Amino acid sequence: MAVPPIAPPTRLLMGPGPINADPRVLRAMSAQLVGQYDPAMTGYMAETQELYREVFGTANEATLLVDGTSRAGIEAALVSLLHPGDRVLVPVFGRFGHLLVEIAQRAGAEVHTLSTEWGTVFAPEQIEEAIRAVRPAMLAVVHGDTSTTMAQPLDALGDICRQHGVLFYTDVTATLGGNEFESDAWGLDAVSAGLQKCLGGPSGSAPLTLSPRAVEVLDSRRSIEAGIRDDHSPVRSDPIRSNYLDLAMILDYWGPKRLNHHTEATTMLYGARECARILLEEGRAAAIERHRLHGDAMLTGVTGLGLSTFGDLEHKMNNVVGVAIPDGVNGDAIRGELLTDYGIEIGTSFGPLHGKIWRIGTMGYNARRDAVLLTLAALEQVLRRAGAPVTAGGGTGAALEVYGAAA
Amino acid sequence: MAVPPIAPPTRLLMGPGPINADPRVLRAMSAQLVGQYDPAMTGYMAETQELYREVFGTANEATLLVDGTSRAGIEAALVSLLHPGDRVLVPVFGRFGHLLVEIAQRAGAEVHTLSTEWGTVFAPEQIEEAIRAVRPAMLAVVHGDTSTTMAQPLDALGDICRQHGVLFYTDVTATLGGNEFESDAWGLDAVSAGLQKCLGGPSGSAPLTLSPRAVEVLDSRRSIEAGIRDDHSPVRSDPIRSNYLDLAMILDYWGPKRLNHHTEATTMLYGARECARILLEEGRAAAIERHRLHGDAMLTGVTGLGLSTFGDLEHKMNNVVGVAIPDGVNGDAIRGELLTDYGIEIGTSFGPLHGKIWRIGTMGYNARRDAVLLTLAALEQVLRRAGAPVTAGGGTGAALEVYGAAA
Repeated sequence: MAVPPIAPPTRLLMGPGPINADPRVLRAMSAQLVGQYDPAMTGYMAETQELYREVFGTANEATLLVDGTSRAGIEAALVSLLHPGDRVLVPVFGRFGHLLVEIAQRAGAEVHTLSTEWGTVFAPEQIEEAIRAVRPAMLAVVHGDTSTTMAQPLDALGDICRQHGVLFYTDVTATLGGNEFESDAWGLDAVSAGLQKCLGGPSGSAPLTLSPRAVEVLDSRRSIEAGIRDDHSPVRSDPIRSNYLDLAMILDYWGPKRLNHHTEATTMLYGARECARILLEEGRAAAIERHRLHGDAMLTGVTGLGLSTFGDLEHKMNNVVGVAIPDGVNGDAIRGELLTDYGIEIGTSFGPLHGKIWRIGTMGYNARRDAVLLTLAALEQVLRRAGAPVTAGGGTGAALEVYGAAA
Repeated sequence: MAVPPIAPPTRLLMGPGPINADPRVLRAMSAQLVGQYDPAMTGYMAETQELYREVFGTANEATLLVDGTSRAGIEAALVSLLHPGDRVLVPVFGRFGHLLVEIAQRAGAEVHTLSTEWGTVFAPEQIEEAIRAVRPAMLAVVHGDTSTTMAQPLDALGDICRQHGVLFYTDVTATLGGNEFESDAWGLDAVSAGLQKCLGGPSGSAPLTLSPRAVEVLDSRRSIEAGIRDDHSPVRSDPIRSNYLDLAMILDYWGPKRLNHHTEATTMLYGARECARILLEEGRAAAIERHRLHGDAMLTGVTGLGLSTFGDLEHKMNNVVGVAIPDGVNGDAIRGELLTDYGIEIGTSFGPLHGKIWRIGTMGYNARRDAVLLTLAALEQVLRRAGAPVTAGGGTGAALEVYGAAA
């Protein structure tokens, strides 16, 4: 079989992620490998931990990368912190809430859910009431759910969790770096993320942080791998159900013991490290403001074209907007034309929103003025060809007004 | 925190892996991303599947990448194919046999082991006898265990497994591309690998293949994720215990249904694709012969220096040799000096061999004449400085004779 060298077509990825990687990240990832215990490598690991402490807004010693995509980080947190039979409360406001439910169920937890209509979020009182009723060991909630574009406010939940002795976990894959998030100030015990959204990297590495309270839970479940200990008796009767995603073991690898576990995915680590460097060079606050600005320009732009947006805009993430597909328009055909003729990708949607909305992202490396304006210009053209009523120049004009006001 | 750009020191990685990545692989990984369902991306996925069919020696439709390091591939195979309570037989001849035991135990399987002294392998008759006694659902065995440098012969085991109705799984992370391996001809049902050994890539992607018989097991355990189906009833009562490593779901993502699961780690996929292209351009047989030649030169070279090798050389992998640390020599000090003064890394060892042997690899991009000769030359210098008796020029001289004979 003759397979040619890799040569991807040029795409501007304006969906809900993954988006184009920052070229700096790709260059960092082309660096040559060093050995797993080379002082240079353990130095890079320590630097990466320090960088992600700042990215997450935490002093947690237990800050590291899980070697897999963002859902590997989610599963690592849930399978490592939940004992089979533990009760967990999951407020579900979109697809990724369902994912937390499913992963927790497979970990053997007793899962209780709260539901709300897609496009809305929960009030802290609703969650506190459910915590009183369920008395869970953990509250597990997605911060931003790209399936609905909503961001669940988390800042009031940490205190509630402490009061009721509940571990507080969130997945910030879709929000980190582009929306306000403060791990320590908001009282999080476990947080996992991915690189492929506002951090401007490729999927495949999951930054994760654990509070001392979460580490205590791990300490009670820690075991040492048979292949590197002398005593080969069976694993303890209540082991963490995964070896690969056992955070107690992964901590022993990243921590001062440096106990051998997996072989660190060095190239992904180089990428994760560069993502954090780029974010912190810009400054967290500036990066969030940039996402707010370009997200606002995109939202104002699609409205200016005459399109409607989806969901409670008060709680929209900065980096993605749901756009109602106009009546009589084939949403997938529009997406196909945008990709084929303009090289621009926007997102489809899942579940109850499938066929009803597109999702347009402005995040990471692509939270840029030219990316927003090109997308609006191209969208106007394909909508007009499809016979949809659009305001000529209305998209870019409205976006430029947002930029003008900001300049 | 000011963290400088990535700039790893130059290292020649001659341990048991990871080794230096082929620069072609790193260049392929610097290509820009495309969307997850872009026709270019699904095309790359299909090409990668086809390439790895050839690399594994299989016609298995179910050939794909697991997004994690090689142990993610191992765990995906075991947790997806074993029901809790299933009996599994693991012949243990080194550290990674213990790893299979541990992962299978955590998956809830009833694990039975066979043991042999480190540095030896099993006769097929021993394994068949144990299969008769245990009547397992699966035989799980490591092909090459870098901890002992041994390769377990597998070619006779497929027939035995078929005869007894046993699924046959092996981990070929350490051997694939550098040692003979034939998935279909040897009767394998499940095989997992990694990029960081003879394939010359970075850790972080686990190629995996499943026979139709293995896929049948998955079919009986398949579920569709709540977030992308309409019916939100709980997952089935006997779900695969992991969502991230659920091969039935991962197959639905790689297969024609293209059901959304994780966000493919595109950069790692570019790397895995290039690793296979490089191997198949050279030709599998030529690559194996190259590993045999350079492995032989290294073995002959260390012997020529006056050092002893470890284990049953009849069953040694081509790509790594165990070298006895001479009496009175501090093994770690020698390794440190090699790294600091010559930029060359060789491996330490685990468990019963810790402090007794070094492990020196010749694999992937580093299965090269200059890499072998430089390593032998430097090793001679550091051993002499440490006061160990070495034959001046004995290492490179003996290796050159091997090369001369081959020329």
